[in-house]
Amino acid sequence: MTAIKVVAFGGGHGLAASLRALRRCAPDLELDITAVVTVGDDGGSSGRLRAERGALPPGDLRQALVALADEEPATRRSAELFQHRFAHGNGARPPGADPLAGHAVGNLVLLGLMEQLGDPVAALDHAGAMLGAVGRVLPMSCQQVEIEARVRGADPTRPDELRTVRGQHSVAVTQGRVESVRLTPAGPRACVEAVAAVCEADWLIFGPGSWYTSVIPHLLVPELAAAIVASPARRLVTLNLAAEQETLGLSVADHLAALRWYLPELRVDLVLADGKAVGDPEPVHRAAESLGARLVVAPVAVEDGSPRHDPAALGAALVPVLGANR
Amino acid sequence: MTAIKVVAFGGGHGLAASLRALRRCAPDLELDITAVVTVGDDGGSSGRLRAERGALPPGDLRQALVALADEEPATRRSAELFQHRFAHGNGARPPGADPLAGHAVGNLVLLGLMEQLGDPVAALDHAGAMLGAVGRVLPMSCQQVEIEARVRGADPTRPDELRTVRGQHSVAVTQGRVESVRLTPAGPRACVEAVAAVCEADWLIFGPGSWYTSVIPHLLVPELAAAIVASPARRLVTLNLAAEQETLGLSVADHLAALRWYLPELRVDLVLADGKAVGDPEPVHRAAESLGARLVVAPVAVEDGSPRHDPAALGAALVPVLGANR
Repeated sequence: MTAIKVVAFGGGHGLAASLRALRRCAPDLELDITAVVTVGDDGGSSGRLRAERGALPPGDLRQALVALADEEPATRRSAELFQHRFAHGNGARPPGADPLAGHAVGNLVLLGLMEQLGDPVAALDHAGAMLGAVGRVLPMSCQQVEIEARVRGADPTRPDELRTVRGQHSVAVTQGRVESVRLTPAGPRACVEAVAAVCEADWLIFGPGSWYTSVIPHLLVPELAAAIVASPARRLVTLNLAAEQETLGLSVADHLAALRWYLPELRVDLVLADGKAVGDPEPVHRAAESLGARLVVAPVAVEDGSPRHDPAALGAALVPVLGANR
Repeated sequence: MTAIKVVAFGGGHGLAASLRALRRCAPDLELDITAVVTVGDDGGSSGRLRAERGALPPGDLRQALVALADEEPATRRSAELFQHRFAHGNGARPPGADPLAGHAVGNLVLLGLMEQLGDPVAALDHAGAMLGAVGRVLPMSCQQVEIEARVRGADPTRPDELRTVRGQHSVAVTQGRVESVRLTPAGPRACVEAVAAVCEADWLIFGPGSWYTSVIPHLLVPELAAAIVASPARRLVTLNLAAEQETLGLSVADHLAALRWYLPELRVDLVLADGKAVGDPEPVHRAAESLGARLVVAPVAVEDGSPRHDPAALGAALVPVLGANR
C-alpha cells in the first residue's frame, strides 16, 4: 500500500488540531503528511522575534511541529521543551524587564536554526528530526508577509466607518467586522517545497482555523493558489465549530463563500462539519454545492461543549473520507 | 571488556579539550565518560541568564555536551545549533537593543529544560540525548556559586594592595596576581550524581583549564573533595600549555602545588605535561612527587604553536595511561 499524500493548510491551533486528527488515522491509513503554515503572525513571542531579528514568525510553525512530534518519551519531552514558555519574574529583575519572558523555547530553537542554516525549510526539517515528526512542516512563503484587513466599525464608537487594520494579531482581535483581507507585500513568493507537495498530493485539507488570518492567506499566495487549483488532489474543507472574533457575523455558509471569493477557480470535493455547528444544514449544503462539494456531517467536537475539535473524533471522521476510492 | 569509568573535571575550553581527547581513545579503549563542570561562570550569556533568571550558568555545561555530541550528521547539526550565537544587529533594532544578541541557542535550551524539569541533572541528561552524547555531563553543584579571589595589584596603580575580586569573569581577567580563591556560599552541596560517579570511577582527570576558576573550584565543594580523596580511582592531572591571565607568575610546578594547597589529602598517580610547556623538568618532577605522582611528558599541543591541546595527540597520550594495569 502506498501512503496517501495529504497537505493540510492552516495557522496555529486549528492546523494543530487537523494534524493531530490526521495522526489518529493510523493504523487504518498510511498517510504522508505535509503541513503548510501561514506565516503572517505578528503577535506575542513570534511578533517580537519578527520585529527584532527579521525572522519568519516561528510560533505557528512550532505548533505544527509539536502536533506531529513522535510520542516516544524522549521526543515527547523535546516537544514539551519546544512548548515551554519562559515565565515572567523568575529571576532578580522586575516583571517586564526580563528579556526572555514570554518566548517559547521552540521559537528560539527555530530562530537559531533559520539563522544557522539560512533556509527556513532546512531549519524546519531539522527541527522535525529533533522531534521525530511524523510529517513535514513548511511555511506558505519564506518571505515576511503582513495581513491587512478592511474592517467596518473597528472603532466601536464609529460603527459604520471602514478602516484598514494591519497585522494578523490586530485583525484577529478587531472589534469590527472584517470585510476583506489581503497580504502585503501583495503576491509573495510561495515556498517551493510547499508548491511541490500540493502538486503531488492526494488530498488538500483547508481548515479548521481562523478563517481570515490562517486559512484564506494561503489562497493569496499566487503560486500556491495556482498549484491548489491545478493539483490532481481531492480537496476537503473542515469547517470551524464556532465563529471567532474575526469572523463574527459570518455564517457557516459564509465561510465557504469566502473561500470562493478569494479563489474563484477553487473546486472542493468534500466539506466536513459538526452537526451542532451547522444548525440548519440547507444553506451549508447549497454553499458546499456552489464549490462542487458534498457536505459530510459528523460529530467532531470535544464533548465538553467547547468549540474545539476532538482529535480522535475528527480522525475517525477522516478515515473513511481519505481512504475512499483508493 | 568492561568500560573504563572516567570522570573529567574542569570548566569551559580546557574540559572540552579533555573530553574531545577522551573520545579519541576509542576504539582502543571503551570509556564510560562523565564530565563534572564548574558552575561559577558569571560572564557573557551565562552571566546574564544567571542574573536574570536565577539559573545555573549553562555555557560551560553546553560546551561539555557539545564536546561529547555524536558525530552523525543530524546530531552534529544539533550541536552546531547549540553553539549558534545570536548576533547583534540582525533585526531592525540598533545593536545593543536586541535582547537575544549574544545568547547561544544551547544556553537557552538548557535554561528551558532546567525550568521545565526543575532538575539540572535531568535537564542535562535530556540535552545529552538530544545530541547523542557519548557520555554524561553533570554540574559540580546544583547551587549557584560565586568564585572570589584575593588579588594583589588588581588595581595596577597600587601593585602591592590586596583586594577581593568577585565573580569568575573578573577573576579570570584580573590584572593582578591571584593569591587565593574561595567559593561563596562556602561549602556548597555537591551534585549527588557527580559524587556517585567519583566513587565508582576508575580514573579521575583534573585539567587542563583555568586553574583557579575551573579546576580548583571542584576541590572547594566538600562532598566532592571527600569523594575525590576516598575514591579507589587513579588520578591524573593534565597540565596547561601556558599560563593564563589568572595564573600569571605561576610556574608549572606551582600549578601542582596549588592543588595540594586546596586539598592537602589529594594524592595523584600521574601528571601529564607537554615537553615544551614544562621546560626544565626537575621542579615539575619534584612537585609531581610531592603529590605522589609520576610525570609523563608527551607532545600534546597543536602543531601551530598556540597553547591548545590537540585532541588526537592528547588522546594518543591517554590511551596507554588509562589502559595500563587493567
